[in-house]
Amino acid sequence: MSQKTGPLRDSHGTAKYRHEIIAVVLRVDPSDGLSVLVTRRTRAPFRGRWGLPSGALETEELLDDSLRRHLADRTGLRHLNHLEQLETRGAPDRDPADRTIATAYLGLVAGLPELDPGAVWLPVADVTGEAMAFDHAELVSVAAERLRAKLSYTNIGFALVDEEFTISQLRDTYATVLGYRVNATNLRRILERRRQLEPTGTTAPSGTGGGRPAALFRFSTRALQVTDPSAVLRP
Amino acid sequence: MSQKTGPLRDSHGTAKYRHEIIAVVLRVDPSDGLSVLVTRRTRAPFRGRWGLPSGALETEELLDDSLRRHLADRTGLRHLNHLEQLETRGAPDRDPADRTIATAYLGLVAGLPELDPGAVWLPVADVTGEAMAFDHAELVSVAAERLRAKLSYTNIGFALVDEEFTISQLRDTYATVLGYRVNATNLRRILERRRQLEPTGTTAPSGTGGGRPAALFRFSTRALQVTDPSAVLRP
Repeated sequence: MSQKTGPLRDSHGTAKYRHEIIAVVLRVDPSDGLSVLVTRRTRAPFRGRWGLPSGALETEELLDDSLRRHLADRTGLRHLNHLEQLETRGAPDRDPADRTIATAYLGLVAGLPELDPGAVWLPVADVTGEAMAFDHAELVSVAAERLRAKLSYTNIGFALVDEEFTISQLRDTYATVLGYRVNATNLRRILERRRQLEPTGTTAPSGTGGGRPAALFRFSTRALQVTDPSAVLRP
Repeated sequence: MSQKTGPLRDSHGTAKYRHEIIAVVLRVDPSDGLSVLVTRRTRAPFRGRWGLPSGALETEELLDDSLRRHLADRTGLRHLNHLEQLETRGAPDRDPADRTIATAYLGLVAGLPELDPGAVWLPVADVTGEAMAFDHAELVSVAAERLRAKLSYTNIGFALVDEEFTISQLRDTYATVLGYRVNATNLRRILERRRQLEPTGTTAPSGTGGGRPAALFRFSTRALQVTDPSAVLRP
């Protein structure tokens, strides 16, 4: 490990910091459950551990442009269904090499997008402080918690499914993120009452079971909205 | 205006940035409505405009410790009922003097805490881009929006009222933040159903009207909780 870099100060005496952008990209896998995009670290510190895609902010770059650049460079992923800022962390000891302020983003994708070799989806259930570099395990936990909370008061589910889906596909996605069984009829009723969900008028190709073909649905809006904000309090 | 400082790089070539912490502290005033804590700027840039309490991160300081230090130094305010990170902004042109990454926090207080001379509560309705320094008007707007949304899906109201209050005091607080009329009976029913509210068993001193003394209530928990997360989706 290289020696820790001391604080850098400009001619006015103002302290300056390395600023890093970190991507916590989540998807729901039918067998592995909620999964996060990671790469194996090939350099110290934390060589050999899993790390979230990250990199330094460049001087003329916007924060979210930097996020998209590092994500594409390190994993090949170029499209996200949803992106939001998660939190900024600045504990003096979070990076052993240099004091680094890090802004983490939550990204969501559906399906199985093509990735560069080396980028893998790690089940969130396997994310531990020992498996991950830096404070990345904590960030994954914060991201999963944010997603769980937002499933109940926003339409964020749109970012985890294809544009068209059956109710049982949607139910499975919700249940995977929330960690408990979700009733498909209730889910449909709640999302329709909030005007989040609408039928496409078409059906999915029959499964191998040969049952009745399932109706396809879509989200009314594919951009984040707080559902019915304060509706309960309106007169 | 001093000349813009160029990017500072360490011996590894890593760019380094000034990191600033900004406080958006809100309270509800019975006459002025939702108000934000500001001071008049006495130095360039934006001399003479209103500015949010802010300051540079010191090298061994945690982000929220820095927030509390600058808030106390600039306004005298030392206690917040609630504090949460709002967002981090890093547009290269947001500070004309130097590229500055800023992490903004939302703070909430109740009543009328004692302040240093020079610190004032500005009605959020009077906050405009012309009245405020930097991107502070946008930050106030983001903070008010966050507060409005959280009133509907969390117990955040606890941070805007005294420990004990009447239902009409609580109703007025909600109505001020939300910007529309709120029915006191509905509000009580909803908060009791969510187990956010409980009676203290005592009553408020009678007002000058001499009517029946009003029952006093308190929030069950005075720490932020997402109310009934995903309860609607449980089987």
